[in-house]
Amino acid sequence: MLPSWVDGPAKSAIVEFVSAVTTPGGRGFVAPEDRVAVFDNDGTLWCEKPAYIQLDFLVRRLAEQAAADPELAAQTPYRAAAGGDLAWFGDAVTKHYNGDDTDLKTLAAAIFSAYQGLTVEEHAQRVAAFFTDAQHPSLGRAYTDCGYAPMIELLRFLEGNGFTNYIASGGGRDFMRPVTQRMYGIPPERVIGSSVGLDFTDGQLRTSNRPEFLDDGPVKPVRIWGRVGRRPIFAAGNSNGDIAMLDYTRGGAAPSMALLVAHDDAEREFAYATGAEEALERAAAQGWTLASMRDDWSRVFP
Amino acid sequence: MLPSWVDGPAKSAIVEFVSAVTTPGGRGFVAPEDRVAVFDNDGTLWCEKPAYIQLDFLVRRLAEQAAADPELAAQTPYRAAAGGDLAWFGDAVTKHYNGDDTDLKTLAAAIFSAYQGLTVEEHAQRVAAFFTDAQHPSLGRAYTDCGYAPMIELLRFLEGNGFTNYIASGGGRDFMRPVTQRMYGIPPERVIGSSVGLDFTDGQLRTSNRPEFLDDGPVKPVRIWGRVGRRPIFAAGNSNGDIAMLDYTRGGAAPSMALLVAHDDAEREFAYATGAEEALERAAAQGWTLASMRDDWSRVFP
Repeated sequence: MLPSWVDGPAKSAIVEFVSAVTTPGGRGFVAPEDRVAVFDNDGTLWCEKPAYIQLDFLVRRLAEQAAADPELAAQTPYRAAAGGDLAWFGDAVTKHYNGDDTDLKTLAAAIFSAYQGLTVEEHAQRVAAFFTDAQHPSLGRAYTDCGYAPMIELLRFLEGNGFTNYIASGGGRDFMRPVTQRMYGIPPERVIGSSVGLDFTDGQLRTSNRPEFLDDGPVKPVRIWGRVGRRPIFAAGNSNGDIAMLDYTRGGAAPSMALLVAHDDAEREFAYATGAEEALERAAAQGWTLASMRDDWSRVFP
Repeated sequence: MLPSWVDGPAKSAIVEFVSAVTTPGGRGFVAPEDRVAVFDNDGTLWCEKPAYIQLDFLVRRLAEQAAADPELAAQTPYRAAAGGDLAWFGDAVTKHYNGDDTDLKTLAAAIFSAYQGLTVEEHAQRVAAFFTDAQHPSLGRAYTDCGYAPMIELLRFLEGNGFTNYIASGGGRDFMRPVTQRMYGIPPERVIGSSVGLDFTDGQLRTSNRPEFLDDGPVKPVRIWGRVGRRPIFAAGNSNGDIAMLDYTRGGAAPSMALLVAHDDAEREFAYATGAEEALERAAAQGWTLASMRDDWSRVFP
């Protein structure tokens, strides 16, 4: 079991936890219906560097909108998208952290109106088409092969032990759904994520330009309860945005486990801790299990 | 199969539809993962007269709050609740329909603050305790025995044919969840309903005083997509608030069926069409299947 995990503390902790909650009559036994596991996606199940995969999808859409409308093409962020100036998008976020929200607000407006009017089915078709041929910019593999092999094995291991796996991601719910079954064995009804509001008109659900959920930080536990109606007993994340979900999972009466993926493998993936500083501190202070990509995984990608 | 359904057009329509979507190689075949069925709850799966069951739960809570706080006890709606004046609550709704929103607004504020500060687990315990002994005021049975036997048989029939059943109700999501598994075989993760906002603090999810969703009318399809990520192929409702859900279900490419429960049985349940006028017209005009409680059901309750 878990062949891509190195024998060591992370793998042992997983195996021992699963053994404890599945041993009938044991003190840590948890009924199968309460074996709920939640996984962040970006940086936890699939690669999030050099940029979120969804940003690639978005930039292509903005370029498409620019190509169809010369007036838009002259404006940010459409001009940046059409010109392949991906740095603009990164800079918008950096500026935001430095107290200048101008570009991020412009970007947000573009994001929320990017799919306006499309039915949910049309949107799903676009996502599926994107994943048919889009490649990671540096890893030399399709995005659909950028899921972490050890985490996919973990999903199967939990499932084989009566767990039900959910994704709880800050990424777009309807961006992930078309590929989660194929990549992770997780069907659309178990994908929780951020969303743009939908309108029901003429028998169809159409994308609006209103934000609905940003499924990050303390919103994650709220959305997990809203969707599942049970407190998870296993949670995996990789960033500060996952702390609340990990806390929630660890705060119940049943035995529970929190797993934090550490991106410390510059050779096989990327090495970074920006945005995970507090999560890494909390892992050390509160006994969350750390999965070091470098030390705990014998391979990273399938 | 479906022993509480009289042999007739409604039962035939159900059996023929299920046969068509489950016959391998047939023109109407639908893959099991796409066999999603959605059910309204109040008036569709359980009795909603003389008042919503949830209103009984709420009035008891308001009376409890009044008993603990003399200042509250002097105000509406707490005074009405403490004095057992249930007519006040019905009048608030009637006044609203007559253009006077004063009482309904007072009531709404009381509803949204009724459980403020309770954790979701504490709330679930209160609901479970309520259903342990609360009785229907006139039918002489526990509320948990007020589910319609023919509809419960229908849930089992669909399930046995590879369908996945969801509740999509205007009723409170977290009010229904503690009993849906026992009454309907529907687990909490498949209950979609109205909700009050939750706050995540100190590792716990606590009820706020902010409305979140009113899961009725055009909100139903939006919430169904948000939760399921698939368009249902079967939907059952009983009122105007279900029209959008029934339209959505009928508007897809796959074969689909819409069922409308008609409350026309004053002897065994209640006879009323208020709030269902448009739905009944639409059923006749668009070929939705009508389930007459009087004519199509050989028994109503278990």
